[in-house]
Amino acid sequence: MSSTFGQVFRIHTFGESHGGGVGVIIDGCPPRIAVSQEQIQHELDRRRPGQSEIVTPRKEADTAEILSGLQDGVTLGSPIAIVVRNTDQRPGAYDEMAVKYRPSHADYTYDAKYGIRSASGGGRASARETIGRVAAAAVARQVLDSLHPGIEVLAWVKSIQELTADVDPEAITAETIESNIVRTGDPAMAEPMIARIKAIRSDGNSVGGVIECVIRNCPAGLGEPIFDKLEADLAKAMLSLPATKGFEIGSGFSGTLLTGREHNDAFRMIDGKVRTLTNRSGGIQGGISNGETILFRVAFKPTATIMSNQETVTSDGENTELQGRGRHDACVLPRAVPIVEAMATLVLTDHLLRQHAIQPIS
Amino acid sequence: MSSTFGQVFRIHTFGESHGGGVGVIIDGCPPRIAVSQEQIQHELDRRRPGQSEIVTPRKEADTAEILSGLQDGVTLGSPIAIVVRNTDQRPGAYDEMAVKYRPSHADYTYDAKYGIRSASGGGRASARETIGRVAAAAVARQVLDSLHPGIEVLAWVKSIQELTADVDPEAITAETIESNIVRTGDPAMAEPMIARIKAIRSDGNSVGGVIECVIRNCPAGLGEPIFDKLEADLAKAMLSLPATKGFEIGSGFSGTLLTGREHNDAFRMIDGKVRTLTNRSGGIQGGISNGETILFRVAFKPTATIMSNQETVTSDGENTELQGRGRHDACVLPRAVPIVEAMATLVLTDHLLRQHAIQPIS
Amino acid sequence: MSSTFGQVFRIHTFGESHGGGVGVIIDGCPPRIAVSQEQIQHELDRRRPGQSEIVTPRKEADTAEILSGLQDGVTLGSPIAIVVRNTDQRPGAYDEMAVKYRPSHADYTYDAKYGIRSASGGGRASARETIGRVAAAAVARQVLDSLHPGIEVLAWVKSIQELTADVDPEAITAETIESNIVRTGDPAMAEPMIARIKAIRSDGNSVGGVIECVIRNCPAGLGEPIFDKLEADLAKAMLSLPATKGFEIGSGFSGTLLTGREHNDAFRMIDGKVRTLTNRSGGIQGGISNGETILFRVAFKPTATIMSNQETVTSDGENTELQGRGRHDACVLPRAVPIVEAMATLVLTDHLLRQHAIQPIS
Amino acid sequence: MSSTFGQVFRIHTFGESHGGGVGVIIDGCPPRIAVSQEQIQHELDRRRPGQSEIVTPRKEADTAEILSGLQDGVTLGSPIAIVVRNTDQRPGAYDEMAVKYRPSHADYTYDAKYGIRSASGGGRASARETIGRVAAAAVARQVLDSLHPGIEVLAWVKSIQELTADVDPEAITAETIESNIVRTGDPAMAEPMIARIKAIRSDGNSVGGVIECVIRNCPAGLGEPIFDKLEADLAKAMLSLPATKGFEIGSGFSGTLLTGREHNDAFRMIDGKVRTLTNRSGGIQGGISNGETILFRVAFKPTATIMSNQETVTSDGENTELQGRGRHDACVLPRAVPIVEAMATLVLTDHLLRQHAIQPIS
Repeated sequence: MSSTFGQVFRIHTFGESHGGGVGVIIDGCPPRIAVSQEQIQHELDRRRPGQSEIVTPRKEADTAEILSGLQDGVTLGSPIAIVVRNTDQRPGAYDEMAVKYRPSHADYTYDAKYGIRSASGGGRASARETIGRVAAAAVARQVLDSLHPGIEVLAWVKSIQELTADVDPEAITAETIESNIVRTGDPAMAEPMIARIKAIRSDGNSVGGVIECVIRNCPAGLGEPIFDKLEADLAKAMLSLPATKGFEIGSGFSGTLLTGREHNDAFRMIDGKVRTLTNRSGGIQGGISNGETILFRVAFKPTATIMSNQETVTSDGENTELQGRGRHDACVLPRAVPIVEAMATLVLTDHLLRQHAIQPIS
Repeated sequence: MSSTFGQVFRIHTFGESHGGGVGVIIDGCPPRIAVSQEQIQHELDRRRPGQSEIVTPRKEADTAEILSGLQDGVTLGSPIAIVVRNTDQRPGAYDEMAVKYRPSHADYTYDAKYGIRSASGGGRASARETIGRVAAAAVARQVLDSLHPGIEVLAWVKSIQELTADVDPEAITAETIESNIVRTGDPAMAEPMIARIKAIRSDGNSVGGVIECVIRNCPAGLGEPIFDKLEADLAKAMLSLPATKGFEIGSGFSGTLLTGREHNDAFRMIDGKVRTLTNRSGGIQGGISNGETILFRVAFKPTATIMSNQETVTSDGENTELQGRGRHDACVLPRAVPIVEAMATLVLTDHLLRQHAIQPIS
Repeated sequence: MSSTFGQVFRIHTFGESHGGGVGVIIDGCPPRIAVSQEQIQHELDRRRPGQSEIVTPRKEADTAEILSGLQDGVTLGSPIAIVVRNTDQRPGAYDEMAVKYRPSHADYTYDAKYGIRSASGGGRASARETIGRVAAAAVARQVLDSLHPGIEVLAWVKSIQELTADVDPEAITAETIESNIVRTGDPAMAEPMIARIKAIRSDGNSVGGVIECVIRNCPAGLGEPIFDKLEADLAKAMLSLPATKGFEIGSGFSGTLLTGREHNDAFRMIDGKVRTLTNRSGGIQGGISNGETILFRVAFKPTATIMSNQETVTSDGENTELQGRGRHDACVLPRAVPIVEAMATLVLTDHLLRQHAIQPIS
Repeated sequence: MSSTFGQVFRIHTFGESHGGGVGVIIDGCPPRIAVSQEQIQHELDRRRPGQSEIVTPRKEADTAEILSGLQDGVTLGSPIAIVVRNTDQRPGAYDEMAVKYRPSHADYTYDAKYGIRSASGGGRASARETIGRVAAAAVARQVLDSLHPGIEVLAWVKSIQELTADVDPEAITAETIESNIVRTGDPAMAEPMIARIKAIRSDGNSVGGVIECVIRNCPAGLGEPIFDKLEADLAKAMLSLPATKGFEIGSGFSGTLLTGREHNDAFRMIDGKVRTLTNRSGGIQGGISNGETILFRVAFKPTATIMSNQETVTSDGENTELQGRGRHDACVLPRAVPIVEAMATLVLTDHLLRQHAIQPIS
C-alpha cells in the first residue's frame, strides 16, 4: 500500500473507517509557519457527514487532534501528526458486507490483493481516509498563504448528471459556492440539483457528476517536467480520490474537436507581463504553470452504495444478492468539493517547495 | 526536473531534442529476463518520424544502443542504459524560435521556471523525450511476458476531431491497428481519418483526437491504495505525455450521467471466477485491478506547431508574430499510439513487481 | 526534515519529547501477518526509562496504542499507526535550556536550520523519537518470523569506555544479554560496567561505549548494489541514532592493518553449501549478504547532558554558563541495545521485501 | 538494484566493467550553472587507472562525453547524462573467474541474489562504477561553487596499514595531497607508504588503510533529522563504496573512551558567531552541520584480488583453487581519495538543495 503523497511537502495518511482513528503525518513542512487549528477544523467540517440534509446523516464529529510538529501554533519543521478518532461506529451494520462483495466497491479487489480486508465500514477504502488529506491540505493552505500569498483554490459542483452549472472561473467566490448546500458555483442550479439528489435518494438510488476546480494567481514556473508535470500530478491526485473516473484540464476532451489554429493560445504583453489571450491550455504548458488561471474538471461516478437489491457473489464464491443498507451519500459531490480543493492545494504546495529547491519563485 | 517514473521498475530518461542524444536508464529490472533488442527497435520504429505519409517527414533513424545491464541478451538485474543518438538536426531552423515563444508550447514556461531553455528543436520538451519511455517499455513488455504471460496492452486512435472509430476492446488486435497508418482500430474509419489529416496539413493547420487503450488479461490485485491507485498512476502516466489534456477510465465523464443502479457492475461467478456482468468500472475498483478488461481514453490536443502566422511575444517582452516552420506532425495521434501503450506497460510492470514485494500474484 | 526510513517496508516517525505524543506509521507491511501487541510493548519496555537503577529515573509508561492496520491481530496490508502518549512532562525543568544551547546537543543546530526549536525536553532531537522505530521494528520482527523464520538479531554492550566484553557472536543468547541490566554479552563484565556507570553518574559525568550486533541465519542475497548496499543501509541506520559517532562491519578499522592474503575469506563447500572459512567480510560482500553471520559495531559518545557547569552561549549570542539538570542517562548504551536491534531489523525486513520484488529468496 | 543516490540532487549510475560503457544521469541540478567539462575530466583523471606507478597499469582513458543537460556549458535544469566508454577490455583474462568465485569479492553474492552475474571484469561490482559518481560530483562541485562558494572538500590517505600520516585538517591543502602519488596529507609519510605498497605488490599481496576527509566552511543548517542526518548520509555514502568496512566522524570510536565532561564541545561567541571551542562532534550535532569543520574517516580493507593461490569454490559447488591474475591495485587508497571527496560533495549538494526547499541558507 502506498499512503504517501508528495516529494518535498509529503503526507502519509493512515486509518480504516472503523478502528482507532484516521489521520495523517505531514513531513517536509517549512518551519515558522503559523497554523490555525480552527482552519483545519473548518475544512474537516466542510467534508464531514451530517452537515446538511443532502449528505449522509452519519454523525461523525471528526475533531482533529494535533500530536506534534507545532509549538504555540507555529510549525517547527518537524512532522505534524494529526489524528481524528473514529466514533459512531455501527459494526453490526456491516455483517452482511463481510461476506458479500458490494458491487462497484473495493471489497473484492482488496481481497484479491491482500487476501484479507477490513469489511467494517469499508476499511481503508472508505472515504473517511480523505480526512487526513483534508487536514494536511489545511496546513498546506497556510504554508501557501505564508510563502506565496494570493493563490486561490476553489472547486464547485459543475454538474449533477445532466444538470450543469454556468460558472465564470475568474469571478466565482467561496461565498457563492458555500451559499448552497450542494456547493455548485451557479446559484440558479442549486435548487434543481438539490431536488435531483433528494429525488434519487428517495428512490434508493444515487447520482454522480463533475466537479470543476480553479487555481487563480498561481505563479508561473510550477511543475516538474518530465513525469511530474503539474497537470500529471493533478491528474494523479484527483484519480486517487474514491469514485473518480476522469480528469481533464483546460480544453480537455472537447479540445480534441478543434484545430490547432483555433486551439492555440496566442501570447501578448499585457501590463508588462507575458499573458495568453485565450486559455485553452488551462494555465499549464509543457507541464509548467504559465501564470494564467488553472482550470480542471473531475468526473465522479454515482455512489456505489444504493438501497436496492443487487446481484453479487460471496467471498466463498457463491452467487447471492445484497440489499444495500447503512447511511450513505446518494451523491458524494457536495462533500467532495473540499477534497478536490485539498488535493489541488497539496500538489501546489509540494511543487512550490520543489521549485524553491532549485531556484526561488519571483 | 523529475525524469524518474516508477517505484520498483524505475526509469530515468534524459536528453534534449538536439545535442548528443536521448535515452533511458531502467533500474529495478528483474534478472534473467531475455530481452530482444529487435523488439526494442520495433517499438522505436513505431514512434519514429518519417514512418508514413501522414507523419512528420523528419528522418530520424532512432537506433537504440544498449550500454549496460544485459549479458548475451539476458538481464543482469543491473541498470539497463539505452542511448539513441540525435541526428538530422537543423539548428538553424530554430533561430527564430530562440527569441519568440511558440504559442501553446513550453517555450515560455521553461524560461519562467529555469531562466534558460534549449530552444533548438524544443529541447527537453520535445516529443523526442518519449524515445526513452518507449525503449524502456519494450523491455518492460518482455518482463511481463516472462513473469506473467498473457497480459495484452493495445491502443488505437479512437477519434480524430469528430471522426470516431467503432472498436470492440475485447476483440481488437494489433494487426488491425497496424493495418492502417493512422492506427485506428476501425478499418472503416482509416481512410476518412487519413483524409482529414492530409487536408488539415495542406491548410497549414493541425488536429487532435482521442486514443483509447485496453489492457486484457490483467491479473486481479494490481494497484496500490491510497495514492498509487492503478487508475491514478495511469492518469499520471498519460498526462505526463506531451499534448495530453484529459484521461478517463471505464464509464469516464459519460458515466456521470447514469444513476448508481445503472452504473454498478454486478458480480457473478462465471467459470469458477469472480466476474462482473458489466464493466463500467473499467477493470479497476478501489484502485486495484479486478481481473476485468482495463479500458481508458486519453485526449490529445491539436499539434501546437502550425504553419500560420501567430501572435506571440519575444523573450525580451515585445509583441511580435511567429511564422510556423519546420517539419512537424499535423496530428500526433498515429505516433502517440505506441507511446500510450508504453506508459501503460510501464505502470503495469511496476505494479506487478510492487505486488511481488508483499505477496505473489496467483 | 526526513522522518521516513525504508523503501518497501517504510516507516514514518513523528513526535517531540513533549507535546501530544510520539509514534510511527508503518507502510508497505505485507498482509496477513499475525502481530502481537505484547511483543511491541515488550520491546518498548526494553528501551523505556526507569527500567533499572542505571538508567534515567524518568517514569514514562510508553504504552503503545495501535490506531490502524490490524484486524483481530492480523495485518491488513494498510498503514499501521502506533501512538505513544507523552506523560511525566516537566516543562519547567527546561526553561533555562530554552535560551541556553546545551553543549554537544542539537539545540544550536536546530535553531540554525529551522529558526525555531522545541526546547522542552529536547523536542524532536530527543531520544524519545526512537520509540516509533522500536515499535515499528517489533512489527518488522514478526514479519521476518512469518516470511523467513530463523533470522536472529542480537545486540549487546561490547564496551563501556575501556571496559570490553568478550563475546562469541555465534553463541551469544538473548537470555545472557538480558541477564544483566547493562545488557553486555559478557556476564563477567556486567558488574565492572555497572560500577563504572554508577561511579561516573555520582560524579555528574557520563560515559559512552560500543554496541556490537550480530545477525545470524540471514539468507544470502539481501542488499541492493550500488548505493543501497546492505552495509551502507546498516551504516545509515546506525548513524541516524542519537549519540552515534562510528560504524564498522566485519574486520572494520582493524582490518586495515592486515594484508589481503590475511584478510580474504576463502570459500569452501561445507554441507553442500557455499561457506567462507573466515568471516572478515562480516557476512556481506559487494553489498549483498553471503549467508554468513553479519557482525557490526556502533560507537556511542558519552551522554551530552552532564551535571556540571559548562560554558555555552544563549540564543541571543551571549556567552554564559549552563548547569545541567533533569533526569538523564549517564550512559545510554543499556537502553540503546534494543534500538540498535530495531534498526537492524528494519533494514533486514525492507531488504527482504525488496528482494521479493525482483525474485523470491530461496 | 538501487543505483540512485540523493533526494533533490539525484544521480543514477549505470554500467558494467565490460560492455558499452559506464556513466551517470544527474537529475535535479539547478539551472544556469556554468559547468566546465575540463573539471569533470580532471576528477576522472584523478581516479583513473594507470595514473602512477603504484596503481593498476590498466590503460583506461575514461573520457567523459556529456549527452544532455548543458547548453553552451551552462546547465539547463534538465538531466545531465554523462557516458564513459569502456575500452582496453581483455575478457579472456576473466574466463577462470567466470566459474570460480574470487574470495572476498562479490562474485558469489551476485549469483546468490540474481542467479546471474557479469563475470567479465567484475561487472557492476567493479570499481569502474565509481566513474559515474566522480563525474556527477564534479558537476555538484560546480553547483556548490555557484550557490555557496567557499565550501572545501578534501580527502587524503590517513594510513596504510600501521603507517599513519600526521595531518592538520584545518590547514591541509589540495596541493599537498596531490604532491605525492599516494595522496597522503603528510609529505613525510609519502615515501614510506609508497615503499610499502610497492613491497606488498611485489609479494603479490595487497594492503588497505584509512582515508580521512575534511569539509571546511560548510554552512550551519545542513542535514535532515531524523533519518537523513548529515552524518548518516555521509556514512551511507562511504559504505556504498567498494572495499569500505567502517566510518567514523569527529571523535569516532576513540571518543567512546572519554567522559562527557571531556567530550562535550563548549560553545563560545567568537567574532560574533556561535563557535565551539573543541570539535569532537566533527562539525555535526543532532544530524545538522554546526558550521565547524566536518571531519570523518573511512576504513578500506586490503584489495581482495591478490596474486596468490587461494582456496575457493566454483559456481557448480566444487572446491577448487584460484590463481589471481589481471592488473589490479595492490592498494586502492590513492585512487579512492577523489572518490571519497566525490561522495561527500554529492551529500553536501543534495542537502544544500534540500535546505533551500524549506528555507534559504544564510
